[in-house]
Amino acid sequence: MFYIVEILGTVAFSISGVLVAMKMRMDFFGILIIAFVTSVGGGTLRDMLIGNTPVTWMTDMMYTYVILVSSIMAIIFRSKLNYLRTSLFLFDTIGIGLYTIIGVEKGLNANLHPIICIALGTITACFGGVIRDILCNEIPVIFRKEIYATACILGGIVYFVLSEFPIGNNWVFMISGLVVILTRLLAVIFKIALPDLYSEKKG
Amino acid sequence: MFYIVEILGTVAFSISGVLVAMKMRMDFFGILIIAFVTSVGGGTLRDMLIGNTPVTWMTDMMYTYVILVSSIMAIIFRSKLNYLRTSLFLFDTIGIGLYTIIGVEKGLNANLHPIICIALGTITACFGGVIRDILCNEIPVIFRKEIYATACILGGIVYFVLSEFPIGNNWVFMISGLVVILTRLLAVIFKIALPDLYSEKKG
Amino acid sequence: MFYIVEILGTVAFSISGVLVAMKMRMDFFGILIIAFVTSVGGGTLRDMLIGNTPVTWMTDMMYTYVILVSSIMAIIFRSKLNYLRTSLFLFDTIGIGLYTIIGVEKGLNANLHPIICIALGTITACFGGVIRDILCNEIPVIFRKEIYATACILGGIVYFVLSEFPIGNNWVFMISGLVVILTRLLAVIFKIALPDLYSEKKG
Repeated sequence: MFYIVEILGTVAFSISGVLVAMKMRMDFFGILIIAFVTSVGGGTLRDMLIGNTPVTWMTDMMYTYVILVSSIMAIIFRSKLNYLRTSLFLFDTIGIGLYTIIGVEKGLNANLHPIICIALGTITACFGGVIRDILCNEIPVIFRKEIYATACILGGIVYFVLSEFPIGNNWVFMISGLVVILTRLLAVIFKIALPDLYSEKKG
Repeated sequence: MFYIVEILGTVAFSISGVLVAMKMRMDFFGILIIAFVTSVGGGTLRDMLIGNTPVTWMTDMMYTYVILVSSIMAIIFRSKLNYLRTSLFLFDTIGIGLYTIIGVEKGLNANLHPIICIALGTITACFGGVIRDILCNEIPVIFRKEIYATACILGGIVYFVLSEFPIGNNWVFMISGLVVILTRLLAVIFKIALPDLYSEKKG
Repeated sequence: MFYIVEILGTVAFSISGVLVAMKMRMDFFGILIIAFVTSVGGGTLRDMLIGNTPVTWMTDMMYTYVILVSSIMAIIFRSKLNYLRTSLFLFDTIGIGLYTIIGVEKGLNANLHPIICIALGTITACFGGVIRDILCNEIPVIFRKEIYATACILGGIVYFVLSEFPIGNNWVFMISGLVVILTRLLAVIFKIALPDLYSEKKG
């Protein structure tokens, strides 16, 4: 089941890459590269940081196939993508939850400190989008508006808190993943944002 | 002979870096760094992705010497570089062909899937230019105009098709490298581009 | 004592990251990420290039704690940072001197050529700022104005020259670090810059 969730997340990330790349009027291969980077960029940076090479997408072909198929479909049906906006947002959010916990566990396998593991989870989930925005010459969205990183960090903390209790690994995985997903959903639905550090300058 | 070709490619890449950096009015070290990144950036990313560290240019001093000499020459004779435009374009194209096949073979040595090897070849040939453009705060040229990546991917495919036939390794190397070079040359000469995905919006 | 100097340098780098991120009006986590990247980005790139993984900040928690505390303090006392401008500049300069020599020694430990070691020192000292500027969508400052890289390269050269003489390792370390620091200080005080390559176009 985790595998299916991971595929859905990969699909959502690659389509979000396609959408940004098309807004920049890139050509076919530009779009493919951006889709690829958005999907696997975070995990790639994580793997390079901990020395887990060749990086994951080079040894597990699932990523390549899923990204190729979903990007090409997204390019072909680009005029219909608007109808999928809500599903894509959901997939994307689920993908972030899953990627966060995968990143945390990779850190644990490398015997790293919990804070570093949470950072690795956040990198896995968020840095694909950061690299996408850099390649598209924009200031990464994550630094300015979304509650993205906050959700990942919260989920990572929950993961380590739950690990102290005698519940199975699978439950820890699922509950902390759900925390990421729900935090993001609630933040978007209720338009919650971090306190504005700059308000005093505006007044 | 391959070694001479590799040096010519390195020269061309570093001079292309010098030209971009001077257009951005960078200072001496800025220019050197951009020349360096343009030449070895793609191979560096490839090496980090597959865990081939220390990366190639750190253990083979040829790159450093060639880039230093050619960049300094390019800075000194900067007003004459225009006369070399055609030679530089040829060197650059040859370099791309060679870098692509080198990247493909590094992937094979790491036992990676053919699609991943082709991706590594394309990364080796193209990502120096991508990193250069990011450092110069421009949207990477490759994503918008050139048939660059297409040529590399085509050459990579030819490499694997030819490998199925009983011809020597050297021939496979040379023919597939030539495919990259000729694809790019023909595309530029006949102004071939990928189909425009956005034409419907213009009408 | 080196450890205290390293902490001061990390503090200065992270606060410089906070200042840039706040100028871009980033949110809380954006600021933290930029502070982190500015402090450890150079060392991280160095570690990934030579294959020293997991990278340093993942195994030595000092960096994480120092960056978290100093960034949060900087955000809280943001209106008072102006009074610290001179101290911060001094810390930053000291940090660059120290980071340069640390980078050079990491290269030596990996048996790399002196030129490559000097490059690694420069990368350690300067690339945190480069990555910060890329993330903030600006052309890296270092490529355009400062005598930053020059100071690092000079210090690296002094390191290798002194190593030829029968003086203790600690002295080599300290003297070459001081060369970096003094070069930068003198350059800023006397407004020394590299010769302008573009003056002929202006005239």
